[in-house]
Amino acid sequence: MSTGDACVIGIDYGTLSGRALVVRVSDGAELGSAVHEYRHGVLDTALPSGRRLPPDWALQVPDDYREVLRVAVPAAIADAGIDPAQVIGVATDFTASTPLPVDADGTPLNELDGLADEPHAYVKLWKHHAAGAQADRINALARERGETWLARYGGFLSSEWELAKALQLLDEAPELYARMRWFVEAADWIVWQLTGVYTRNACTAGYKGVLQDGAYPSRDYLGALDERFADFADTKLDAPIGRLGQAAGTLTAEAAAWTGLPVGIPVAVGNVDAHVTAPAAQSTRPGQLVAIMGTSTCHVMSGSTLAEVPGMCGVVDGGIIDGLYGYEAGQSGVGDIFAWFVQNAVPAALTEQAAAAGASIHQLLTDLGAEAPVGAHGLVALDWQSGNRSVLVDHELSGVFVGLTLATTPVEMYRALLESTAFGTRRIVEAFGESGVPVNEFVAAGGLIRNATLMQIYSDVLRMPISIIGSEQGPALGSAIHAAVAAGAYPDVAAAAAAMGRVERAVYTPDPARADAYDRLYTHYRRLHDLLGDTEKGIMHDLKRMRREVLA
Amino acid sequence: MSTGDACVIGIDYGTLSGRALVVRVSDGAELGSAVHEYRHGVLDTALPSGRRLPPDWALQVPDDYREVLRVAVPAAIADAGIDPAQVIGVATDFTASTPLPVDADGTPLNELDGLADEPHAYVKLWKHHAAGAQADRINALARERGETWLARYGGFLSSEWELAKALQLLDEAPELYARMRWFVEAADWIVWQLTGVYTRNACTAGYKGVLQDGAYPSRDYLGALDERFADFADTKLDAPIGRLGQAAGTLTAEAAAWTGLPVGIPVAVGNVDAHVTAPAAQSTRPGQLVAIMGTSTCHVMSGSTLAEVPGMCGVVDGGIIDGLYGYEAGQSGVGDIFAWFVQNAVPAALTEQAAAAGASIHQLLTDLGAEAPVGAHGLVALDWQSGNRSVLVDHELSGVFVGLTLATTPVEMYRALLESTAFGTRRIVEAFGESGVPVNEFVAAGGLIRNATLMQIYSDVLRMPISIIGSEQGPALGSAIHAAVAAGAYPDVAAAAAAMGRVERAVYTPDPARADAYDRLYTHYRRLHDLLGDTEKGIMHDLKRMRREVLA
Repeated sequence: MSTGDACVIGIDYGTLSGRALVVRVSDGAELGSAVHEYRHGVLDTALPSGRRLPPDWALQVPDDYREVLRVAVPAAIADAGIDPAQVIGVATDFTASTPLPVDADGTPLNELDGLADEPHAYVKLWKHHAAGAQADRINALARERGETWLARYGGFLSSEWELAKALQLLDEAPELYARMRWFVEAADWIVWQLTGVYTRNACTAGYKGVLQDGAYPSRDYLGALDERFADFADTKLDAPIGRLGQAAGTLTAEAAAWTGLPVGIPVAVGNVDAHVTAPAAQSTRPGQLVAIMGTSTCHVMSGSTLAEVPGMCGVVDGGIIDGLYGYEAGQSGVGDIFAWFVQNAVPAALTEQAAAAGASIHQLLTDLGAEAPVGAHGLVALDWQSGNRSVLVDHELSGVFVGLTLATTPVEMYRALLESTAFGTRRIVEAFGESGVPVNEFVAAGGLIRNATLMQIYSDVLRMPISIIGSEQGPALGSAIHAAVAAGAYPDVAAAAAAMGRVERAVYTPDPARADAYDRLYTHYRRLHDLLGDTEKGIMHDLKRMRREVLA
Repeated sequence: MSTGDACVIGIDYGTLSGRALVVRVSDGAELGSAVHEYRHGVLDTALPSGRRLPPDWALQVPDDYREVLRVAVPAAIADAGIDPAQVIGVATDFTASTPLPVDADGTPLNELDGLADEPHAYVKLWKHHAAGAQADRINALARERGETWLARYGGFLSSEWELAKALQLLDEAPELYARMRWFVEAADWIVWQLTGVYTRNACTAGYKGVLQDGAYPSRDYLGALDERFADFADTKLDAPIGRLGQAAGTLTAEAAAWTGLPVGIPVAVGNVDAHVTAPAAQSTRPGQLVAIMGTSTCHVMSGSTLAEVPGMCGVVDGGIIDGLYGYEAGQSGVGDIFAWFVQNAVPAALTEQAAAAGASIHQLLTDLGAEAPVGAHGLVALDWQSGNRSVLVDHELSGVFVGLTLATTPVEMYRALLESTAFGTRRIVEAFGESGVPVNEFVAAGGLIRNATLMQIYSDVLRMPISIIGSEQGPALGSAIHAAVAAGAYPDVAAAAAAMGRVERAVYTPDPARADAYDRLYTHYRRLHDLLGDTEKGIMHDLKRMRREVLA
C-alpha cells in the first residue's frame, strides 16, 4: 500500500448517535461514513428497567457507545470500500461533560451485578441538569474563598460539569460514590475501551475537570464542600494527562475484533466535538475563532497568551491545540430560539405558504425578511431565551423583544431574532478583543451555515468576513486529523489540519452600509444587554423565581 | 300621552356609522334602535372623485352625517313602535376631534361649487394623522413660551386636535383657510343642522379646542405659529359655548322633515362619545372613573377640584358633567394589541382548535390562559404597540416582551398582553391618586367588557371592584339622557342618569392572593415603564426614527 492509500477513522459521539468517518490521510478526502443511533438514546424519564427518573435528569447507557464501534466503524469501512488494513489510526470526540462512574478495570457501575437499577450508576449526559444545587454550592464557595481558578471559567462553573455531577452522586448515592474507582469522562472512557489504558485528555480535564496549571481544586476547597469530597481529585480523577494529538495507546485485540481494524494501530487521546472542529476548519492559529452554530453556539479559539476573558466558558493550556491556550465561549441558545419561534409564533397563512412553496418555514421567513433594509423592522431582540452563557454567565436571564408595533410582522420578528444572535456573537468577539486575545478571523461551522442570509447578517454585524468550514462532518474530520497525528503521519495537528482540513475563506464579506446600520442597532442591543442583563437583572431573575414558586 | 310614554332620541356618531336609539324618559328603557353606515365610510386613500390622498389622511363626507338623520332616526322610531309625537327631545354625540370647514351658513366647503375635489374642504376625521408636523410646532412653541394651558393637557396637544388640523389647512391650502368662516367640530355641526344655530359644546371646546378658563390660546401665541394664524380663535372659533345638558335650540322644520320628529322639540348641545358614556353608566360623581375599553381605552372621570395630572389628555371645566371638572386619560392601544397578536403570532394548531370549538381565537387564548397562576408564565409586557398616551404621552414608544424562554407559549404571551393593558390602567389610576383626584370606583364600558377573564385581571391588578355598564349602547343612551335634561324632564344630568342610566356595581372583585402576585409583577412593569419609557426612551425613539429613515 502506498502512503497515498493510508486512511484514518474519526468517530464523533453526539447526543443521539455516533458517526464513523473514513478519511484519506494524504488530503483529508472523506471516503465513507456510517451513523449508528444509540439503542437507549437519552434516558430522561426512566431507566431501561422502567424505574422513573426525577425531572432534569439525562442519562445514557455506556454499552451504546461500544455498539457504535461494533456497528458504525465496519459500516463506514464498507461504505468507503477500503481494505481495513489501510487504516493507520483512530481518534474519537465526544459530547462533554458526560462522565460516568467506573470500577478499577473501567467497567461502568451500571454493568455490575445489582446496580442496573441505580440511576447514579449510569452516564450523566452533558444535559443532565439535576446538579444545579451542587453547582450553586461550588460557585458560592469558590467566590467566598477567592479560588483563583474561577476566573479561568468566566467566574462560573456549570452544573453540567463533572464537579457538580460528582457532588450530586456523593450527596444522593454515597455508597455508589464510595464504590466508584474513577469518575471518567466518556471521551476518555471510549479511548480506554479501544486501548485498554485510562488516559485523561487535556481538553476535558481542563474545561470540564477544572485542571489548571497542573492542579485540580485543592483538598481544602473540596473538603469544605463536603468532608467526604476532600480526596475527590486525588482518588477519583487520578490519571495521566494526554496532550491532544498524542496517542493514548494502541488498539487492543478486543477492540480490533469489534471494529474490524488492525490490532495495534495508534488511538489518539480523547477530545470534545466542538474543540476538535477547529483543525477540521484549518483554524489552529491564534485568533482564528471557530463558531459551531447549531441549537446553541460554541466558540473555540486558540491564543498564544493567557488571558481571563469575562464570561468565557474556559481557558485551558493545550485545550484545543497543544502548545496554545484554548479559549471557549458560548451562546446558550441560537438555532433553538429560531425553532421556538417557528413552533409558537408563526400564523397559519405563512405555514401554508411554506408548504405550498415546498420550503421550510425557517427558509420562508428568512427569505421574506432578507430584502428589507437594516432597521426597517424597528426591532431589537435579546437572544436569552435559554439564558446567557457568554459574556454574562446568567441562566436566569430571558428573551426580549423591544420595538413592537401594530404593524410588526412575524417575518420581521424572525429576522430580529436572527440578528439578536449575531449581536450576541459580536459581544463575545468584542470581549475577546478587550481582553487582549483579539479575534482575527471568524470561521463558521455547524448546521446553521446552510442559511446564507444568516451568515451575511453575521458578517455585517461583526464587520468581518465569514469563512465557512468545507466539511459537513466537522467533528469526525477533526478526529481523523488527530488520528493521523497520533499515527505519526504528520508532525502536529496544525500540519495535519493544513493538509486534511477544509475551509472556504471569506465566503461572506461585510457590506459597509449594512454594517453601519447594524452598528446603530447594536448600540441599542448593547444598552439593553447591559441594563436588563446587569444593572437591572433583578427583573428577569424575579420573573423566573416567581414562575418557579407558583408552579411548585 | 302620559309622562310615562315620553321618549327621547340619542344619536351616536361613530367612525363608520351612526346609531339612533329610542329611550323611555321615565326609566331609560331602550325601546328601539337603528344603525346607518356612512355612505363614503372613511376616505383614507382617495376622494369620491378618485383624487388620491397622501398617507395618514382620513376624511369624511358631511352629508353622510345628515343621512343618518334621514334614515336611522325614522328606522329607530319604527323599530320602537312608538308614535313620533312621543319624542320630547334629541341629543347627539360624536367622535372627536373631527372638525370641518364651513361657510357663514354652515355649509361644508366641500359642498360649495368647485371645491368637491379639494381634500382640505372635507371633514378631517379624528384619526387623520397628517398634521404631526403642525402638532410638533404647536407643542414646541407652547413649551418655549411656557403657555399655562399646556399642563391641562398632560403637557402635549395631539396632532388629532383642531389646532393642528387647522394649521395644516392654513399651511397647505391657504385660500380655503381664508374662505372658511368657521372650523367646526362635527359634534357641533350636526346640532347646527338640527337647530339652525351654531353652539359650541363645552366638551370639545375644552378637550379639543384648548378653551381654558374662558379663553383660547392667545393671539400672541397663535401669531407666533404663523402670523396669518393670529386671529384663528377670534375669527374661526367664535361661537357661544353651550354647557352639557343644555338645549342648543329646537328642531327646525327641515330637520323635522328629515327625521319625522316634531318641529320645535329641544335639541341638546353636542357631546363626545366617550364622555357621554359616564351618565349612561350612572357615573357622574367625582372619583367614578369610566373606562371605555375597545381598540383603545378612554378614561373619563369628574372631579370637584382642578388638578394637573401627568400625562392626562385634558381637564375641562364642565367637560363631562356641568359644574365639575372633567378629566380624560387614555391608553392608545388595548383591543388592537390583542388583535395584532391574534393576526400575527398565533400558530395554525390554535387557529384550528378555535375553529373546531366554534370559538374566537381571542376566546380560546383567553380561556387556555385563564387557569394558570399569576406569574406562571414568567413574562411581563409593555402595552405600547400604539405608543403611550397616559401617562408618558409618547407616540414613539413601542411594545415589549420580557421573560421569553424556549417554553413560552402563545397562550402565555396573550395573557401577558391582557395583563399589560391592566398594568397600563393601574399606572393611570395611580397618577390620578398621586395628583389629588383619587379614583374611587372603576366602571368598565365598551366591547371588551364581554371578556370576563380580562375584567377579573383588571380587578386583581387594580385591587378594586369593577362595575360594568348595563347597556350595550353606552354613548347613545348617554345622549338620550342629555336629551331628557335638555327637554326639561330632569333637573340635571346626574338626576337623569340616576333614573335612566344602568350599571352593575362590583361585578368583579379582587382576589387578595392574585392581587398580591400582580403587585409583584407590576413592580417589574413599572420599572420597565420608567426605564424604557423615560430614562432610556432614546432606544425606542431611535428604533422608530431608523425605521422611518430607511423606509423613506
